[in-house]
Amino acid sequence: MSEKKASNEMWGGRFASGPAAIMEAINASIGFDKKLYAQDIAGSLAHSEMLAEQGIIAKADQEKIAHGLNTILSEIEAGTFVFSTKLEDIHMNVESRLAELIGPAAGRLHTARSRNDQVAVDFRLWTKNELTRTAEALKGLIAAFLDKAEAHAATVMPGFTHLQTAQPVTFGHHCMAYVEMFGRDLSRVRDAIERLDESPLGAAALAGTGFPIDRHRTASALGFREPTRNSIDSVSDRDYALEFLSVAAICATHLSRLAEEIVIWSTPQFAFVRLSDQFSTGSSIMPQKKNPDAAELVRAKTGRINGHLVGLLTVMKGLPLAYSKDMQEDKEAVFDAAETLDLMIAAMTGMVGDMTINTDAMKRAAGSGFSTATDLADWLVREAGLPFREAHHVTGRAVAMAEAQKKGLEKLSIEDLRSLNPAITEDVYSVLSVNNSVKSRKSFGGTAPAEVKRQIRYWRKRLAKA
Amino acid sequence: MSEKKASNEMWGGRFASGPAAIMEAINASIGFDKKLYAQDIAGSLAHSEMLAEQGIIAKADQEKIAHGLNTILSEIEAGTFVFSTKLEDIHMNVESRLAELIGPAAGRLHTARSRNDQVAVDFRLWTKNELTRTAEALKGLIAAFLDKAEAHAATVMPGFTHLQTAQPVTFGHHCMAYVEMFGRDLSRVRDAIERLDESPLGAAALAGTGFPIDRHRTASALGFREPTRNSIDSVSDRDYALEFLSVAAICATHLSRLAEEIVIWSTPQFAFVRLSDQFSTGSSIMPQKKNPDAAELVRAKTGRINGHLVGLLTVMKGLPLAYSKDMQEDKEAVFDAAETLDLMIAAMTGMVGDMTINTDAMKRAAGSGFSTATDLADWLVREAGLPFREAHHVTGRAVAMAEAQKKGLEKLSIEDLRSLNPAITEDVYSVLSVNNSVKSRKSFGGTAPAEVKRQIRYWRKRLAKA
Amino acid sequence: MSEKKASNEMWGGRFASGPAAIMEAINASIGFDKKLYAQDIAGSLAHSEMLAEQGIIAKADQEKIAHGLNTILSEIEAGTFVFSTKLEDIHMNVESRLAELIGPAAGRLHTARSRNDQVAVDFRLWTKNELTRTAEALKGLIAAFLDKAEAHAATVMPGFTHLQTAQPVTFGHHCMAYVEMFGRDLSRVRDAIERLDESPLGAAALAGTGFPIDRHRTASALGFREPTRNSIDSVSDRDYALEFLSVAAICATHLSRLAEEIVIWSTPQFAFVRLSDQFSTGSSIMPQKKNPDAAELVRAKTGRINGHLVGLLTVMKGLPLAYSKDMQEDKEAVFDAAETLDLMIAAMTGMVGDMTINTDAMKRAAGSGFSTATDLADWLVREAGLPFREAHHVTGRAVAMAEAQKKGLEKLSIEDLRSLNPAITEDVYSVLSVNNSVKSRKSFGGTAPAEVKRQIRYWRKRLAKA
Amino acid sequence: MSEKKASNEMWGGRFASGPAAIMEAINASIGFDKKLYAQDIAGSLAHSEMLAEQGIIAKADQEKIAHGLNTILSEIEAGTFVFSTKLEDIHMNVESRLAELIGPAAGRLHTARSRNDQVAVDFRLWTKNELTRTAEALKGLIAAFLDKAEAHAATVMPGFTHLQTAQPVTFGHHCMAYVEMFGRDLSRVRDAIERLDESPLGAAALAGTGFPIDRHRTASALGFREPTRNSIDSVSDRDYALEFLSVAAICATHLSRLAEEIVIWSTPQFAFVRLSDQFSTGSSIMPQKKNPDAAELVRAKTGRINGHLVGLLTVMKGLPLAYSKDMQEDKEAVFDAAETLDLMIAAMTGMVGDMTINTDAMKRAAGSGFSTATDLADWLVREAGLPFREAHHVTGRAVAMAEAQKKGLEKLSIEDLRSLNPAITEDVYSVLSVNNSVKSRKSFGGTAPAEVKRQIRYWRKRLAKA
Repeated sequence: MSEKKASNEMWGGRFASGPAAIMEAINASIGFDKKLYAQDIAGSLAHSEMLAEQGIIAKADQEKIAHGLNTILSEIEAGTFVFSTKLEDIHMNVESRLAELIGPAAGRLHTARSRNDQVAVDFRLWTKNELTRTAEALKGLIAAFLDKAEAHAATVMPGFTHLQTAQPVTFGHHCMAYVEMFGRDLSRVRDAIERLDESPLGAAALAGTGFPIDRHRTASALGFREPTRNSIDSVSDRDYALEFLSVAAICATHLSRLAEEIVIWSTPQFAFVRLSDQFSTGSSIMPQKKNPDAAELVRAKTGRINGHLVGLLTVMKGLPLAYSKDMQEDKEAVFDAAETLDLMIAAMTGMVGDMTINTDAMKRAAGSGFSTATDLADWLVREAGLPFREAHHVTGRAVAMAEAQKKGLEKLSIEDLRSLNPAITEDVYSVLSVNNSVKSRKSFGGTAPAEVKRQIRYWRKRLAKA
Repeated sequence: MSEKKASNEMWGGRFASGPAAIMEAINASIGFDKKLYAQDIAGSLAHSEMLAEQGIIAKADQEKIAHGLNTILSEIEAGTFVFSTKLEDIHMNVESRLAELIGPAAGRLHTARSRNDQVAVDFRLWTKNELTRTAEALKGLIAAFLDKAEAHAATVMPGFTHLQTAQPVTFGHHCMAYVEMFGRDLSRVRDAIERLDESPLGAAALAGTGFPIDRHRTASALGFREPTRNSIDSVSDRDYALEFLSVAAICATHLSRLAEEIVIWSTPQFAFVRLSDQFSTGSSIMPQKKNPDAAELVRAKTGRINGHLVGLLTVMKGLPLAYSKDMQEDKEAVFDAAETLDLMIAAMTGMVGDMTINTDAMKRAAGSGFSTATDLADWLVREAGLPFREAHHVTGRAVAMAEAQKKGLEKLSIEDLRSLNPAITEDVYSVLSVNNSVKSRKSFGGTAPAEVKRQIRYWRKRLAKA
Repeated sequence: MSEKKASNEMWGGRFASGPAAIMEAINASIGFDKKLYAQDIAGSLAHSEMLAEQGIIAKADQEKIAHGLNTILSEIEAGTFVFSTKLEDIHMNVESRLAELIGPAAGRLHTARSRNDQVAVDFRLWTKNELTRTAEALKGLIAAFLDKAEAHAATVMPGFTHLQTAQPVTFGHHCMAYVEMFGRDLSRVRDAIERLDESPLGAAALAGTGFPIDRHRTASALGFREPTRNSIDSVSDRDYALEFLSVAAICATHLSRLAEEIVIWSTPQFAFVRLSDQFSTGSSIMPQKKNPDAAELVRAKTGRINGHLVGLLTVMKGLPLAYSKDMQEDKEAVFDAAETLDLMIAAMTGMVGDMTINTDAMKRAAGSGFSTATDLADWLVREAGLPFREAHHVTGRAVAMAEAQKKGLEKLSIEDLRSLNPAITEDVYSVLSVNNSVKSRKSFGGTAPAEVKRQIRYWRKRLAKA
Repeated sequence: MSEKKASNEMWGGRFASGPAAIMEAINASIGFDKKLYAQDIAGSLAHSEMLAEQGIIAKADQEKIAHGLNTILSEIEAGTFVFSTKLEDIHMNVESRLAELIGPAAGRLHTARSRNDQVAVDFRLWTKNELTRTAEALKGLIAAFLDKAEAHAATVMPGFTHLQTAQPVTFGHHCMAYVEMFGRDLSRVRDAIERLDESPLGAAALAGTGFPIDRHRTASALGFREPTRNSIDSVSDRDYALEFLSVAAICATHLSRLAEEIVIWSTPQFAFVRLSDQFSTGSSIMPQKKNPDAAELVRAKTGRINGHLVGLLTVMKGLPLAYSKDMQEDKEAVFDAAETLDLMIAAMTGMVGDMTINTDAMKRAAGSGFSTATDLADWLVREAGLPFREAHHVTGRAVAMAEAQKKGLEKLSIEDLRSLNPAITEDVYSVLSVNNSVKSRKSFGGTAPAEVKRQIRYWRKRLAKA
């Protein structure tokens, strides 16, 4: 491949001087957009077939083009293709090589299109594909949580608010909260795919073209639902990239919450879970340590994705239509965010699947901190007819009494309890145990094991169709 | 209303000392969450009705509660309600007043719920309502653009890439690019509404409840599609706020692009549009100036919305389940972003509707800068059978020649053109005029006036159903 | 004050129509910039005095102006001043009232200046003042930590990495880490003050003025080090606001780390500290809970400050010189960030001062998890001459042995230890206790109590001069 | 180099299973931290020399270590060093190779230090070096502007506010505004260097060490001003990275403003500047175009740097002390931001140096739009004694009259002017020309050519010492 056939020669003879090293460094995108090679070639194949069908180029030329493009695809996949920075981007690299391979017919490929719609179609295809992968990854993570939830539908742990023990819940129920979160992420991913599923090919530079092209034909060949409806918007729009990053940022936020919980649960103080060796590391100076590195890195990488979102929102802010070169900054942000999110989901799926649950520690913690105080208050409302706020006061005094006697609520004597309110009977002890507390919360979406199992069944069905 | 009945007294007798001024300042949310009063009261009404229907509270108590809540609603709307910072938030302010109005029955309202699900239901209702308003506002903005596009379906202007004249387009076509953008915003808004349309009421503190409540009943009374499925997620989820902010940030990005164009178009150098006095201002020292202040402020406020998105993503990062007080930071961000977005859309709808288009200046600019060079290249491909890349070279030389002769492409003599390529005929002049260029681009989504009109019809129909 | 004398009348007779409600809503800044009243009046006083001294206005007019401005200052501070949205901003509100009070002489005040330099001087003065307040607040927080460090210079706690017990440290030493962080914040604040300490007054609209003004005179009257050197930069620069927000964001990050530690340390599982009632709250449904709300809110508000930083960076991105109305978005961001940071520092100063340290829980935790493993490894290097990496391996085996025997390292028998390496002697037990471990780390900046005390002395001296 | 000697073997025999591919992908940092090789080796050399001097390791071992490290340095610089992902990071890669080269003595190097202080020292050294490079780059950019300012101290252009012509200024003056901005950036860079100039080496894992090390000695050997004062802070602090990113973000904001101006000035409508071919590109479909790609990319890359700042602020938010693995996310953000900022400054220095100023177009624009209206108002104040506000009204009427007559202010007849205010004399025409307007603005920092030249001299002196 001739290094002399540089990209600026392609623009025509206007530029006397060659691009300086600095211009090459700032301007060339081939370093990252070569990732789009498959999409670029697919787009060119679809375009050239349509051109031939519409009689815009000769069938013979189209066959040469198709043969040449397939050769290039093989070369790239075999690692023998030589990418040139002077040729700036993936489009020029492919086209220049095509000219070497098939001669003048290569020059007919760019009829009725432009780099502006070419990059738009490549990047949309890539993003659509990535979103589809993300959907699959999310389904795997949800499945891992469903399995964990099923195994622990009745495992009692403390439910926290403000990281203080609030009420007993089941670990299965806690897992199902993540199923809901990642389920919403999955639905956002689906909506994003649906919204971007339009082909910009044929928008040309920005105004459409006078050639009698068939944009529905290329849209369908590339697997898009339909062509875009406005050629200016087609080349100036990067909503699909922004929406991908938004969706990724929210999903990453969920992963960071899970990561934080794993870090805290792995401390000797909590000791709720034990990570597998696969997802933890040692220390170079403290041989006894087992660090939740993977969880910490997942937590941290949320910042990275948020950063990419901010980056691209900032890039797009205030850009006049149609295409501005600023938009070339879209790709590295999305590529890195996609790879990062992939890794985060995979790591979490592995961690959740592998981790050992310390059910004893969870149960012990669930029973401490007067976690059934609410059950006592509810009993007073239900059985003794107190208004909620009064029941609340009585319970507060019971807790203070138990704290002073250094015992749990369930260990207070019936006399002590009656001194607080004479309507209290022995029956009250039935609600003061952690297991009974959990079982009682049978409201829709509540933490009762039976309810958790119902929700697992719901999600298994839903996931099968997702 | 007794100032003495402070919120911390409600928690029971545990806190000996009163909250210090600083704690009040950092902790109390009534300063902003009073905006949720209508939602809070609606939630309480629905909850109390359901409690009575399920036999959890007496019908007589429910009637008192309903009467009291309606009284409070009137007081707030009449401006006579005294909000107290000591009572922290809207929930406590309403409940405390209810106790004053109806006595002990008020204490029964909080049965089987918690502030955690109460704030979640209030804020979801508010956000859903705001999204619905945003949808209406976007429809108004799209309609303004459709009218402008219709009036200017054939008005020629330069299509820019890199803010350089690229090819002639029509102003109507340019307007339709914004219709596509705001159309996508509208569809994101609809998806967001669909996704948040679940009622968290009855999740209680985080674990659900043992009272025999009917969550489907309250969900339906409040206009939600269904209840949420997991009580922990119900109180720890703020996806709807994050999704609102994401959607708003992308929409604001679109508005900022339009604002930038208006600022540039309003310069004496471009002079494409003239803003109405309504949306511009003067200067205290330069009496002749007419400044596009409203457009600049719209452009700037994009930063504000992005800032709120970053703010809340940062807040939510790494928060363990279920509720943490950090989440109280969600409201001011969303309230301000919603109000800001409203104002931005309203200002832009007004500006677009009011502005005067300088069709002469647009046409003059469209014809300069050899904007039909592509048309020449396309003619060479189509009529003279040159490969695109070769046609491109010939065109480059024609432009250089015209530049040297200080004239437009259409003014080059046929001899000069033939000296570049002998296949060129007089017919070439038919594509070198701006109007013909525009008319020729009839590809689907292209800038030809007929195609623009077709797209306007499509959108008018779609908008009627949106 | 006449509502009719609206701001747009001040611009001259150019605008036929009055500003619409929407324009007023988006354009008027008086809602927030009235906070600058004192700075605005101080700037006007300095300006008018200089004008009189330079003979640009008559002494008698200056005296009227000064009297009028002082009257306005009193009115605003007494709460009797009526702010008008129609008059847009603080500058117009003050000037319009001045005209009412003193008649035509008021019209001379605006000679040789513009709203552009006026707002720049007001906002710089405000920001400088706020930075000075922040410096004082940081000194208070550092002092609180120094006191805590002094009281706990020898209190042993676990030093964490990855939130796993790593090595014993002292709580005093941990406190001194925060002293270093907030000390750096203080130094950033000082640098920011130094950098912004230039007066833009006299830059006028953007070009300077032909009136023979003395900018050094006004700079000095307002307490600035010197005047700015370029009039265009003077009105287009908002670096001081961006730098304030950057400094605030880093400081908030430190506060968020402290907040996270307090939240974790307050869990029953850790129980290292107990917050005072002043800085914690109860729950409406769980009477026994004591929630670290203030710490959570400090942690969350970091997001708010980061959001404001992003907001203003986004606003300023790509703004052409000199003044654009976009810059009006600077103030609310900085005002809110300043108020928020103030509150965060105050809350943390209070929390740190008030909280009770549970030295028993800290010591117990410090001794668990084989925290002196590194001391064993170091002993093997120092006393037995092993290379560090080999010592590390031996230690790893010792830990595994202790873990298997379910005891601490210090409880392993000498025979067991010798089975790992025959060079081990009884002397090894001297390094296996937590107290000895801590005492031994006497390297500069290390955790040994004597070293911690030395650092406290260093900081007390430094703080006295800061 | 043996691939088998994997990093997890170094941790000791605790981990039965090898790290999974996913863990390797998320955990290993060698892919990016190999950039720190020179700093890592310098740190190890300084550390080992100090260890030998203090008698902690034998002189002979130190000599072997030094020889081995220098060999590794040569290998890396020659490109023959084989980096291994299994060995996780640069520290382990170097140490493992050292063991291969010199045997057991390698194991003594890690005495009295940890990866935690090692990475801190490496990254601080790198950041300090990068800040120093940035300072030099900024000086080059400032010098380019000083040259341009000198050449155009008297070149008249429109001064814009709201992108509307406000008053005439000189292009030299406009350039000097950028000198002020980049001058502040330079001063922020210097402050950042000063603040980070402390060596964390010897903080060890987090607690310091019992070995008798000399941290002042290593600090000085590495060119740091002094050692850090607190070992916990030493390993948990990333302020220097956050401050680098903040400083970079503000500098990038300045560059983005310049970029926006270049984009606008390069339009055919403005035509104020013409970029060199070096820093512009053509289009694949529109051969006549000359696009300001480099300026657009500089503008866009501001988003990238802001994104990295947000990313790291988010990572650090709420991290408990001391080291957490999250902090590994610091490096890619800073590396990329540094490289990006470098490129942006270089591109802008080149563009500013190379670009051709179209003085005619600037002057023509400066004279349009009634740009001397303020001069008329000032004349009325100065010569006719009108209060400023009244002069403003008269000027507004003059502008309206000139606009109606479709001429410039300076073309209005004296009769017309006197009809507005009888005090106007022929002398008024002296202030209505653009050149006289500019010359008259002699206030300190004003746009008068003489004043601009004075500021150039000031900056040339200051830069020589900077």
